[in-house]
Amino acid sequence: MRVAVDAMGGDKAPREIVKGSVLAARQFPDNEILLVGDEKAIRHELDSLGTNAKNIVIRHASQVVSMDDPATYSIRQKTNSSITRSVELVANGEATAVVSAGHTGATVAASTLHLRTLKGVRRPGIAVPFPTRHGTCLVIDVGANIACKPLHLFQYGVMAAIFCKYIFGIKDPKVGLLNIGEEDAKGNDLAKETFALLANSHLNFVGNVEGCEIFDGKADIVVCEGFVGNVMLKFGEGLSMSLLSTIKAEAMKSFWTKLGLLLCKPVFGALKAKMDFAEYGGVPLLGVNGVCIICHGRSDAKAIQNAVRVALQLSKNKINEHIVSELEKAHVTAVHAT
Amino acid sequence: MRVAVDAMGGDKAPREIVKGSVLAARQFPDNEILLVGDEKAIRHELDSLGTNAKNIVIRHASQVVSMDDPATYSIRQKTNSSITRSVELVANGEATAVVSAGHTGATVAASTLHLRTLKGVRRPGIAVPFPTRHGTCLVIDVGANIACKPLHLFQYGVMAAIFCKYIFGIKDPKVGLLNIGEEDAKGNDLAKETFALLANSHLNFVGNVEGCEIFDGKADIVVCEGFVGNVMLKFGEGLSMSLLSTIKAEAMKSFWTKLGLLLCKPVFGALKAKMDFAEYGGVPLLGVNGVCIICHGRSDAKAIQNAVRVALQLSKNKINEHIVSELEKAHVTAVHAT
Repeated sequence: MRVAVDAMGGDKAPREIVKGSVLAARQFPDNEILLVGDEKAIRHELDSLGTNAKNIVIRHASQVVSMDDPATYSIRQKTNSSITRSVELVANGEATAVVSAGHTGATVAASTLHLRTLKGVRRPGIAVPFPTRHGTCLVIDVGANIACKPLHLFQYGVMAAIFCKYIFGIKDPKVGLLNIGEEDAKGNDLAKETFALLANSHLNFVGNVEGCEIFDGKADIVVCEGFVGNVMLKFGEGLSMSLLSTIKAEAMKSFWTKLGLLLCKPVFGALKAKMDFAEYGGVPLLGVNGVCIICHGRSDAKAIQNAVRVALQLSKNKINEHIVSELEKAHVTAVHAT
Repeated sequence: MRVAVDAMGGDKAPREIVKGSVLAARQFPDNEILLVGDEKAIRHELDSLGTNAKNIVIRHASQVVSMDDPATYSIRQKTNSSITRSVELVANGEATAVVSAGHTGATVAASTLHLRTLKGVRRPGIAVPFPTRHGTCLVIDVGANIACKPLHLFQYGVMAAIFCKYIFGIKDPKVGLLNIGEEDAKGNDLAKETFALLANSHLNFVGNVEGCEIFDGKADIVVCEGFVGNVMLKFGEGLSMSLLSTIKAEAMKSFWTKLGLLLCKPVFGALKAKMDFAEYGGVPLLGVNGVCIICHGRSDAKAIQNAVRVALQLSKNKINEHIVSELEKAHVTAVHAT
């Protein structure tokens, strides 16, 4: 299988992206990595790594989408960007998956435009595993779409359930609906109507899930509208960093607490590993006709290597075929809900 | 001044509520506390505290709103509940403020129904100070209303700015709009239209604020729609608790990390104090014609004492008069925005 990696996307591009791709090429020797971006820059990084892997191929792309570019602008004006070129490789069948740590909006827009959605899927959604006390909770969507209808949220649930089944090995994952109260009739119209769709579906629906309940194992999957999901994801990042920096600052105030913090170093190491996006690498944009893995802008080589692993896992497990057949089964519900 | 305290609301009611009221009565001897609820139960708590404060008066209410009661049910069916009776004392002028750690939805509903909104105010909003690295960021609304229009969000900004000015002493507070990107044109229709209203107002508008930026001092106030705000508030509670319990669990794994955690005890004490809602007591429901302070369900005596302090501060600083006069100034904008 071939995975197209956007070599120019991310804060640490191209160095860490190329390095991660080389690690992935070694880990998965039967597969091929297409490194997409400025040929000279990529060649330079490959040379400095002294690698000569046969399963790495460079595909030149002359433009780079900057983090300041609006997504729509990047699609219209930068048609030869590393993101667009990477996605096109999947669209024309040269690769089965794309991995990018670049501009998320541009990656979503390019994927939606060039790959189109899977048969039956209305809107793609980004699914992010949130670390919880006992494992993870997959939250979908965290910002691919912000004008959602109940059917979109219902389909997020179906797609995420398949992802959980084949990637996390959870047979009948518990699906929850993000809401502001536990009672069935809670929330805005979107939440109420989505509740009805989920409750009448084949999914293992566990009802409304409040923000705090994401961490207690009530659900394996929580569906929400992209605006709320995006705010929550970023809020979580900010809060975690704020808490840890407060702990550090407070500990610096005395000799004994400084010593305590030093002794606790393994604790924070374990915590960091648990929270570290680099561990799971990248997150899927579910619902497009091809595998698209979105990585954090701060991704390092390890994150990219893991993202390629996830991309291969999704491809090999034929996640998209399962999504299409599952949505066909849910067709009756879908028709009634439009 | 008189503050009506719902003695039956909260996980630790009536004991901690009565205890906190007694502390407040001692701290503010020139003011009066009206303890509202089951007379016998309140009398029992007062007796067990051995108090004989002259500025505490009991007002009997025969019913209690349970946490399982839907808000609308509590309003219609429990007309003699401690929440409704407390709010009515403000409505008929016997008290200037109400404090409740009971059912938030019922308190909001009772306040909106019996106090009505201030002249010019379309929707009341709950303003919560989020602890940040450098102080606090006041987020409004965290769940009083979930079907918002741009004008409602704009008015939240105006009301919160007055609160910040008179209660936190911030002369010209920075107002931000919660959004999923920094660029002006980001977000859903509600965000885009609210952006235009805030940008063309007298407020010190600093633009869009992403979830993670709440913690970095970019804005003193962040306005958002109640569904998102509520999810974010509860998510923050869950995440903080999850992080701290993970730290504790990881530290228990070895002798040295256990010792380290023990030495770090003052650090977590300081962190807890920073995050502790009991420190600021209660949060205001801004926009109703009277002062309404909502407390956390887990409120203890200290939280209630502080909530009474906040209630008195709002009353004495005539926050509501300032809101009305400020909104009159913003009238032209408001008319054009409806």
